[in-house]
Amino acid sequence: MRLGLDVGGTKTDAVAMAPNGTIVARARLATGWGADAVVRTILDAVAALRADPALAAADIRSVGIGIPGRIEPGSGRVEHAVNLGVETLDLAAAVAPVLGVAVRVENDVKAAALGAASLRGAAQSMGYLNLGTGIAAAIVTDGALWRGARGGAGEIGHLSIDPAGPVCRCGQRGCIEALAGGGAVSARWGKPGALPIRDVFDAADAGDPVAVRLRTDLARGVAAAIRVLVLTADVDTVVLGGGITTLGTRLQGEVAAHLDASARESAFLRSLQLVARVEILPVGAPAAALGAALIGAEAAGEREVVSRG
Amino acid sequence: MRLGLDVGGTKTDAVAMAPNGTIVARARLATGWGADAVVRTILDAVAALRADPALAAADIRSVGIGIPGRIEPGSGRVEHAVNLGVETLDLAAAVAPVLGVAVRVENDVKAAALGAASLRGAAQSMGYLNLGTGIAAAIVTDGALWRGARGGAGEIGHLSIDPAGPVCRCGQRGCIEALAGGGAVSARWGKPGALPIRDVFDAADAGDPVAVRLRTDLARGVAAAIRVLVLTADVDTVVLGGGITTLGTRLQGEVAAHLDASARESAFLRSLQLVARVEILPVGAPAAALGAALIGAEAAGEREVVSRG
Repeated sequence: MRLGLDVGGTKTDAVAMAPNGTIVARARLATGWGADAVVRTILDAVAALRADPALAAADIRSVGIGIPGRIEPGSGRVEHAVNLGVETLDLAAAVAPVLGVAVRVENDVKAAALGAASLRGAAQSMGYLNLGTGIAAAIVTDGALWRGARGGAGEIGHLSIDPAGPVCRCGQRGCIEALAGGGAVSARWGKPGALPIRDVFDAADAGDPVAVRLRTDLARGVAAAIRVLVLTADVDTVVLGGGITTLGTRLQGEVAAHLDASARESAFLRSLQLVARVEILPVGAPAAALGAALIGAEAAGEREVVSRG
Repeated sequence: MRLGLDVGGTKTDAVAMAPNGTIVARARLATGWGADAVVRTILDAVAALRADPALAAADIRSVGIGIPGRIEPGSGRVEHAVNLGVETLDLAAAVAPVLGVAVRVENDVKAAALGAASLRGAAQSMGYLNLGTGIAAAIVTDGALWRGARGGAGEIGHLSIDPAGPVCRCGQRGCIEALAGGGAVSARWGKPGALPIRDVFDAADAGDPVAVRLRTDLARGVAAAIRVLVLTADVDTVVLGGGITTLGTRLQGEVAAHLDASARESAFLRSLQLVARVEILPVGAPAAALGAALIGAEAAGEREVVSRG
């Protein structure tokens, strides 16, 4: 049995994966704030899974953890997970001795990409585009994550697509993330609310010109990210995930309108049939937790989920 | 022995590759105009190699051909090779019966990428960015071309990086190719001359404001293409090739200035050390012909140069 955890800013999602890849148990907990509380959450999530009757007497072989922030490939160390209140944390070292099994840590977007590819079950290459506070992507081909030479593949949020665009938190102007990242859109909207991107879409529907502008920027940023993934890596499909995708068809319609507009301008883009190549990950699908379980299994060397690049 | 041909708009470069990968003979011919003349050029180039004493009594196992235009993967058919006066040509069918060996046809930029990776000899992943009339790239990892789901990986010339930029021949505004493609820069310069890009650089050095603007646009387009390759695929190195790279350090300096400027703006980009990851392919290196020979060998199944994606 392989356990996989997706440690998010508010919730931690945990699954137990049988040797045939199916999920046999799932647990969800609130995520604590700060390094100690994050470690506690992970141990609690593993305990919750172990208490599940489906895991009675099961042999737990590995734990994979998907978590925001920068993870040096193979290190188990998390850096700059700002949404969790973690500046630096040697997560594998903190939890592996307690759990008594192999622990592997990976960036949550990469974990979600691998899990989404597994859930889709298709053999074709896939780009996963995470639309959350920030924008990042990951590429899966032949069932394997494309990590790149230095573990940085998919950091397309910081490609500038407009030299006159808004300043990004990274310092450049017109980054895809500055146009389409949830954090950037919320900051530009500047109004309180638990669901600021939904508020922007609602206000845009009601004709608010600022909201219309923000919604347009968001959609053109997402459309640009899709084009980057297809024109560079020629992934067969781009799967959208992350918090903003809870807008569902409202988001997909805006993005499709931008892709259609560029297809009308350019016969080359038209030939790529981009709208038909975009999917949204079903809300609530345990992609990142499943991907983390697969990555844990990869570490243990029993599944061929190799890294390339 | 494997033969490889690079059919260019003016010249055709042909090499004979020994089983150990070394080049044992080379021939260069002027390329004819139009489908029939292109076929004639290819047959003449193979005859020139066969006449080389190094190939006396050698068994020729395959011929690989790199050629501009769109090549349906595995088809041997060339489409839209406008610089050769070829609209459509079933090239493999036209030459294979005459040559009596297996013939494989590939896009010239993909062939050059594979050949450049072989000439460098490094195992790390590589992006090849071709700066010619148009702008296109190809990615090589583990010694293999990343072709993508539909053979379109690397078509980054038609990513827009400036919605207020010049109109591209593809119909969009601000494509990398509209800023940095030799054809687009020549058209915007609008003055006669055999080496228009060199003329633009010379005039910019002399302070001509239009030339300074065109040189700046060219360099920012190339810098953007380098960022796209590294942020999306995290290739270890980006190798620049194609006609514009005959400008050598004059080009490299302008591009480095743009990469340095974005690194000053953004700690994230600074961390990627982009300037140090860019190389120029040596002028006259037979990258595309060698890559074509490797692709021909791949077709014959004797070298593991697989396609992925």
